Amino acid sequence: MSSHHIVRDDQEPALIIANGAACHPELLGQLLEWSPLVVVLDSAIERVIELDIKVDVLLGDFDRDFDPEIYKTSQFPIEIVHAPDQDKTDLEKAFDYLIERKILAVNVVWATGKRADHTITNLTNIVRYRDLLKIVILDDHSKIFLLPNKFEKWYTAKTPISLIPVGVVNGIYSTNLQYPLQNDTLTMGYRTGSSNAVAQDGIVTITHTNGDLLLMECMD
Amino acid sequence: MSSHHIVRDDQEPALIIANGAACHPELLGQLLEWSPLVVVLDSAIERVIELDIKVDVLLGDFDRDFDPEIYKTSQFPIEIVHAPDQDKTDLEKAFDYLIERKILAVNVVWATGKRADHTITNLTNIVRYRDLLKIVILDDHSKIFLLPNKFEKWYTAKTPISLIPVGVVNGIYSTNLQYPLQNDTLTMGYRTGSSNAVAQDGIVTITHTNGDLLLMECMD
Repeated sequence: MSSHHIVRDDQEPALIIANGAACHPELLGQLLEWSPLVVVLDSAIERVIELDIKVDVLLGDFDRDFDPEIYKTSQFPIEIVHAPDQDKTDLEKAFDYLIERKILAVNVVWATGKRADHTITNLTNIVRYRDLLKIVILDDHSKIFLLPNKFEKWYTAKTPISLIPVGVVNGIYSTNLQYPLQNDTLTMGYRTGSSNAVAQDGIVTITHTNGDLLLMECMD
Repeated sequence: MSSHHIVRDDQEPALIIANGAACHPELLGQLLEWSPLVVVLDSAIERVIELDIKVDVLLGDFDRDFDPEIYKTSQFPIEIVHAPDQDKTDLEKAFDYLIERKILAVNVVWATGKRADHTITNLTNIVRYRDLLKIVILDDHSKIFLLPNKFEKWYTAKTPISLIPVGVVNGIYSTNLQYPLQNDTLTMGYRTGSSNAVAQDGIVTITHTNGDLLLMECMD
């Protein structure tokens, strides 16, 4: 059984376990250790329970003859959130749930892999939560988040950095990247900033004037 | 050894094996059976040779101390295409290579999974090849292609259909989908047509006036 219930600090990000491909147990363990709240989406709960993880919230539309009530005993105490809205994905509903609970930040795992439509939707839909929730999506190869208009972070040299525009992003400037951007425009499908890298140990600065720009730290 | 050399018909799609997560050998086998030309990207060749597949073309920038020459013997005859352009991905360079050879259609595997930046770039960059090359990306859960402005295809009822706009797509109409579109606009990150489905056995029609719209047939 995970020890995540011992440490509870609402300043730490919540953790959402979605319904895509499982990540390495070590990554999951690191995130669980500091997470005050674990939210699992729909039928992923079966795979999560197999890993001996205590779930705080189970959320989904619970279609396909899925009965969440059985977990009220095995995962006691657990909150069951029935979210039938067909216009939103379960992941979006989980973000809405956290915002309603006034939680400020969340890490998300198992949101990529398997179905390509779910992967691309999960990665790009985080843009609509700008200013509402600080979201980081993680898998074994990737760490993904939405950039504010001015972003600064210390990186070691050669860290791979990909800038992925969701639509069109204008007025992009960077410092300390191997391929610098100077008032550049990136357009999904036509010109992206994939496979850039940090030039030297130190602060990387990325600014843009408008549009939604994802930063992806990825490794082979 | 694959038998794909026996059947050679330039009307059949070429096959590109990219450098992401491997697909199920059965999917790969089906595609190899009819493919007149197998193109492998860069260091993926090691994983491909392990599967006992004959490679026709090896293409890449061959950085990271990778020596393609050794395959000239083991994969004879093989064409080695050194493509150092840093402004394009290896997958884009492979598309360019096929266009130059006047090949009209290609299936792509191993283009998803692993790094999220590569996955999203590979899936969305196919839009720039409209009218140049008919591209289908496949993995164990997904089949993805760019829609022409008028698309018609026969499907069985309940087939999952996701419509993913790369940017903004306007004037979308559909027939025979569970959630019909009627002069709708889809915008990546804000409003997508993910997780739709075919209503009844029969022709599905999807039209749009402008923008780049991907169709994804995905299964859990």
